[in-house]
Amino acid sequence: MSFRTIEWRDDAVIMIDQTRLPMEEVYQRYTDFNAVAEAIRGMVVRGAPAIGVAAAMGVALGAREIIADTQESFFRQLENVCDVMARTRPTAVNLFWAIERMKQKALSLKGNPLETIRTGLKEEAIRIEAEDLAICKNIGRHGADLIPEGATILTHCNAGGLATAGYGTALGVIRAAHEAGKRIQVFSDETRPWLQGARLTTWELMKDSIPVTLISDNMAGFFMSRGEITCCVVGADRIAANGDTANKIGTFSVAVLAREHGIPFYVAAPVSTLDLSLADGSRIPIEERPSTEVTHIRGLPIAPEGVKVRNPSFDVTPAKYITAIITEYGVARGNYTQELAALAAV
Amino acid sequence: MSFRTIEWRDDAVIMIDQTRLPMEEVYQRYTDFNAVAEAIRGMVVRGAPAIGVAAAMGVALGAREIIADTQESFFRQLENVCDVMARTRPTAVNLFWAIERMKQKALSLKGNPLETIRTGLKEEAIRIEAEDLAICKNIGRHGADLIPEGATILTHCNAGGLATAGYGTALGVIRAAHEAGKRIQVFSDETRPWLQGARLTTWELMKDSIPVTLISDNMAGFFMSRGEITCCVVGADRIAANGDTANKIGTFSVAVLAREHGIPFYVAAPVSTLDLSLADGSRIPIEERPSTEVTHIRGLPIAPEGVKVRNPSFDVTPAKYITAIITEYGVARGNYTQELAALAAV
Repeated sequence: MSFRTIEWRDDAVIMIDQTRLPMEEVYQRYTDFNAVAEAIRGMVVRGAPAIGVAAAMGVALGAREIIADTQESFFRQLENVCDVMARTRPTAVNLFWAIERMKQKALSLKGNPLETIRTGLKEEAIRIEAEDLAICKNIGRHGADLIPEGATILTHCNAGGLATAGYGTALGVIRAAHEAGKRIQVFSDETRPWLQGARLTTWELMKDSIPVTLISDNMAGFFMSRGEITCCVVGADRIAANGDTANKIGTFSVAVLAREHGIPFYVAAPVSTLDLSLADGSRIPIEERPSTEVTHIRGLPIAPEGVKVRNPSFDVTPAKYITAIITEYGVARGNYTQELAALAAV
Repeated sequence: MSFRTIEWRDDAVIMIDQTRLPMEEVYQRYTDFNAVAEAIRGMVVRGAPAIGVAAAMGVALGAREIIADTQESFFRQLENVCDVMARTRPTAVNLFWAIERMKQKALSLKGNPLETIRTGLKEEAIRIEAEDLAICKNIGRHGADLIPEGATILTHCNAGGLATAGYGTALGVIRAAHEAGKRIQVFSDETRPWLQGARLTTWELMKDSIPVTLISDNMAGFFMSRGEITCCVVGADRIAANGDTANKIGTFSVAVLAREHGIPFYVAAPVSTLDLSLADGSRIPIEERPSTEVTHIRGLPIAPEGVKVRNPSFDVTPAKYITAIITEYGVARGNYTQELAALAAV
């Protein structure tokens, strides 16, 4: 890949600004954890695994900013840093997973000089990023086996290198199939309102010379009915114990249409996206984002002033619509409650 | 309604410019049939019944422009005018229906002075417009009975006053239910790529103080799954003998989702939208429109330069997903082949 989604460099966090792609390729530099939190909230960085990495790096930055005379003061302030990061976005569980991992790292170093703790947190954040890239490669490896030679793969939103430390989850599967020489092509839903598909998925697939065709979200059913779609692969923001999957708004519709047409529907995600504390998807919190995402595009209005808007940013696809869930440790099919528990315990 | 979609005034055709709504309410004036054809192609006027009216008025304008010494010359040139109007857009059958009706009117006047034929054609076009308004009122009357008190009605695209001579087909049903005091509200799919829902449906419902909420197309399934949608009502561009219905791209997805949730899905259209010459929907021609409709919004790019795009403008909803088809003569339910033939014969 010819871009870097997020990295720690010279005691700062560098992120490609996803609000400005594909028109401009701009990298933002952050040295303050509050600014990282704002970047997550404002979707400079987005995608469940990527915001996990960003949150971890935000905690590491915050640890550097803390002025404390005592361990107690340091840990109290670190708790506040973690709270700020946790309040950025509610749906993707990777965010909370990464923050929790950073907390555990800090606790494991308690009693050491603060500089040792700070260094340990920085190294842990960098490790989370490196692991995420390796995880995506493994997801790709497991998932590529499911993709037939010559397949046309529909994807929704961006579960690509831009949504992870690199390589991607859904797009990791697609990249791995492409690298295996399977002569695949991709249909990318534009993914209103934020246009992750139109702006990000097309951009990164074109960079990698993987054939991609952009369509509006409401065209997926048309191409399925014409027999033009072989399978669907999407990412996930949170997967409940029974396999119910929260992902970008519109994923559920794609899954229903896929089942109606007998087309396999795959979810690709790291085990850090599993939330086994939830029995099913009904209690996954669904973020509603500002109405201007729907009423304005690139700052220009596309609807009457004052129109009422609903803007749920995610939906939940019940497990029954999901053919398989592809993780870095293997593929769960059908009996998700048992299989996901086993994968989470690896 | 506080706007006029299309009218004949002072030997010109006046149309509200739907490419510029809701930002600007501009009325265009046409005195040349070629310009009317271009307006249909460029979607200054759109919606199956409205482009039928526009085509009829275009033919009437064209008849005025013809310079002919003989009846033969006049009718040969009139045939050319009709061909130009017929080549504007392929899917909506009302266009061809209206042109055919104008041809028949001209033939019925053959042998009269050319000025008599021209006047007859003008009067016929005005009659088609007036009839369309009356038809919509009757569609509304029949359809309102199907709408429960307090219903939340999902609609897709704009099958409103702007898509007809006034009042609308799907929105005619909604207006009639509203006028009957049923305390309804509407969810309007934004309807990418052309945003008829975001730009037009919201605009005309807000003008009539009918409560409307704008959502992205890919959110419909979410709100259905939450039990927030009572029923769906859409328009149609062409209905085959068996009830298969071509309508704006995305209609099919709404219908599949509605059936999955046990939600009634209604099509509202005049009998001029029936094409009983087609046994089923498989042979309805589907227009593919320019890729810039997908890659640009209000002139600004939202996707990488050079990305490949597919842009089918319509899809076909198989009859099995349609709970009922509401026409000006009554409601067809279930056995469409017999019922639609009976309605067409009224």
